[in-house]
Amino acid sequence: MTAIHMKGYVMAEPRQVGPSNYFNVKDIDSLAPEHADLVRRRINALGPAYRLFYDEPIEFVRGSGVHLYDVNGQEYLDVYNNVACVGHAHPRVAAAIAAQAAQLSTHTRYLHRGIVEYSEQILATMPAEIGHIMFTCTGSESVDLALRIAKHQTGGTGVIVTRNAYHGVTTEAAAISPSLGGLASLPSWVRVVDAPDARSTDLEGHADLGQWFAAHVQAAIEDLLDSGITFAALIVDSIFASDGVFSDPAGFLKPAVDVAHAAGGLYIADEVQPGFGRTGSQLWGFERHSVGDARVSPDLVCVGKPMGNGYPVAATMMRPEVMDKFGREMRYFNTFGGNATAIAAAQAVLDVIVDEQIQANAASIGAYLRAGLGELATRYPQIAEVRGDGLFIGVELIEPETGAPNEALMLQLVNGLRRRHILIGTAGLYNNNLKIRPPLVFSRVDADRFLTELDAELAR
Amino acid sequence: MTAIHMKGYVMAEPRQVGPSNYFNVKDIDSLAPEHADLVRRRINALGPAYRLFYDEPIEFVRGSGVHLYDVNGQEYLDVYNNVACVGHAHPRVAAAIAAQAAQLSTHTRYLHRGIVEYSEQILATMPAEIGHIMFTCTGSESVDLALRIAKHQTGGTGVIVTRNAYHGVTTEAAAISPSLGGLASLPSWVRVVDAPDARSTDLEGHADLGQWFAAHVQAAIEDLLDSGITFAALIVDSIFASDGVFSDPAGFLKPAVDVAHAAGGLYIADEVQPGFGRTGSQLWGFERHSVGDARVSPDLVCVGKPMGNGYPVAATMMRPEVMDKFGREMRYFNTFGGNATAIAAAQAVLDVIVDEQIQANAASIGAYLRAGLGELATRYPQIAEVRGDGLFIGVELIEPETGAPNEALMLQLVNGLRRRHILIGTAGLYNNNLKIRPPLVFSRVDADRFLTELDAELAR
Repeated sequence: MTAIHMKGYVMAEPRQVGPSNYFNVKDIDSLAPEHADLVRRRINALGPAYRLFYDEPIEFVRGSGVHLYDVNGQEYLDVYNNVACVGHAHPRVAAAIAAQAAQLSTHTRYLHRGIVEYSEQILATMPAEIGHIMFTCTGSESVDLALRIAKHQTGGTGVIVTRNAYHGVTTEAAAISPSLGGLASLPSWVRVVDAPDARSTDLEGHADLGQWFAAHVQAAIEDLLDSGITFAALIVDSIFASDGVFSDPAGFLKPAVDVAHAAGGLYIADEVQPGFGRTGSQLWGFERHSVGDARVSPDLVCVGKPMGNGYPVAATMMRPEVMDKFGREMRYFNTFGGNATAIAAAQAVLDVIVDEQIQANAASIGAYLRAGLGELATRYPQIAEVRGDGLFIGVELIEPETGAPNEALMLQLVNGLRRRHILIGTAGLYNNNLKIRPPLVFSRVDADRFLTELDAELAR
Repeated sequence: MTAIHMKGYVMAEPRQVGPSNYFNVKDIDSLAPEHADLVRRRINALGPAYRLFYDEPIEFVRGSGVHLYDVNGQEYLDVYNNVACVGHAHPRVAAAIAAQAAQLSTHTRYLHRGIVEYSEQILATMPAEIGHIMFTCTGSESVDLALRIAKHQTGGTGVIVTRNAYHGVTTEAAAISPSLGGLASLPSWVRVVDAPDARSTDLEGHADLGQWFAAHVQAAIEDLLDSGITFAALIVDSIFASDGVFSDPAGFLKPAVDVAHAAGGLYIADEVQPGFGRTGSQLWGFERHSVGDARVSPDLVCVGKPMGNGYPVAATMMRPEVMDKFGREMRYFNTFGGNATAIAAAQAVLDVIVDEQIQANAASIGAYLRAGLGELATRYPQIAEVRGDGLFIGVELIEPETGAPNEALMLQLVNGLRRRHILIGTAGLYNNNLKIRPPLVFSRVDADRFLTELDAELAR
């Protein structure tokens, strides 16, 4: 899948950290009185680190499929939430959770058949060399565990990430997430490379984007070594979601992974966002970059968000060789990780993905949606590019006159669409990308509705 | 609550790391064929870092109250599992999870009334100065977040823990958990103090155990400063579970907290194990150490395990002052943390704790059980001491002739009781403590059954 539309783009220093589609507490008196009161109570209780989406936050009370319903019974189309991958409150997943929670939710130090059967099934979807799975409760814990294992195995601490990467909120995962606290927040053992954005560079003499990205990873490895830091791992989200969604050309990831391996480091595939069929063409995002015989082979794979359709369950999978030292010298126990109810939820999600042909739907509706967005891009010069695969799509917004990132338009669209009852997210180093990643049961009718409303909002 | 029984005790270097009541893979052919096959498949899938309890692992398929049922329909009395605090598969909690999972499980960037109401209720059970709550999915994430906030606030990195502490499995939480990887695994910014075991010391000239413990914390702070490391936090589990359960005399914690505060550090109360009424006398373990006007006032409080009776939900609570810097400079978002179903589970557990008078039951049955264990201690010289409060009890086992820790007897008892269909755990630096912390709906009949079987096993 090549980019549908491409225009010039002027790079600038990012103006702020993280997505900016947040309610500003100063505007609290503009809210309806009953919501102003609830927001005040929420701020009092949850403190200053929590954020609410939108100029006018929404109180949702019910969900079904791709729809969320607010406290007044108003329906919204969800084009944002990737966690509810098989649809909000999917009856089969909810029933599996209900049945198991009423029966037993204990831990992995007793035998339970469910975890063994699920593990065998999900490992069977992975490349043959991925042999083990360990269960956690969140993507953050999975990334954290992958880093623990990678550092233990390699004896190194050096980690390479992309410039606006997000990998989680534990101390260790936040330490490799420049999108959270900015580059200044990163510890000495982290190196940052620019995301593989085909337009942001003239490739600096390299043959293609893959060689360009690999050269930057190589330089980061050498910079680590120059600082006396042993290289442990390259970790990337294979759809580069928080960097702004960079998907193409498929295969560009392979040379960077080769460089990491040649330097004795490991490649950690962060599949928390692209995994479980979202990219349509493959079940796992890294597989998009295996082209012909040139296979991309991760050492560790992290999965999370959609795994339980909202139930907190996540996992780290790995080649048995990289677990050898950790397994001999450490033990691992996660109290809730892989408990019987978590597994029941995950099993139901995997069953639904197969039975309802979720991945094929992501591929076909994703192509339809990207084509529609590409058509909008021919009419609106503010749309610089439409990127992505399946139902993981980034739409980059610029100021047509200057080519500069257009965060103001992004904010207008996100809040304007919210008033049109369409939920949409943001991404990218410059907060100027629409992040489109709805529940994977999105239909053509849903896509048409979204395109119509986006068209109307762009026309304003 | 003073110790019921006390005998001499000879300290020795710990022989191994962590509890040792694990199935040895070498014994796989001793299992029934269908279990040997399941265990083999499990090892293949989950890899070498997972452990199973007991010489002969148990496959549980159902739970109810204090009972677990194996795959053959055999019933077991659960004297070990603290997560299912209001009883396995409590119908009210299971119903709350089922109802909410069928309705909506989305995240905290939309408004939801449930999280505000629950937050207000749980904060009302805390000292007045604890004003905010942040939700995570596991106790590990809660401890990790508390450390992030403490380090951000103080500008320091130095953390003080007890010698066999366990605080979680993220990289950061594992770094302050010597019970996982031993003292050699700890990073340079961690200092370890001996647990406040009234017998392990002659108090070295200090007036009482509180002064002794505070002096050790003070020495650790000075050692950090001597190494150029700014002191950030003292974190202790206020029942000192993995150290072997050290509960008395109530109040001994206060001088150490004062020392930490005087040095500009924070006190983090790890309530993941003692919280939610388990210690009987109070809802929160640290409150046991507030005696008269001498109040123990934590800066951060971590809660987890029993909070959702098995649903992955946990939280960090704090004084608003310590959140100030973090709140201004960082944001925090935990995808599943505080989602509507997690809150529904937590709300149901809190409601049941109140409505079924769970804390009062823990106090009365705990006292009854400790009295019974004290009686056994008068007849069996292998029982050195019975410690704890409420339904968190440690029973220390020694070799009567030498006073040395008796790990062999502990293993015999744990596996012998398993054959008698009683589930019990282990604790302590020398793996020589029975860890008794059943679901809090434990009854006198359950206590009598446990005491009878323990008596019989000791008599062997």
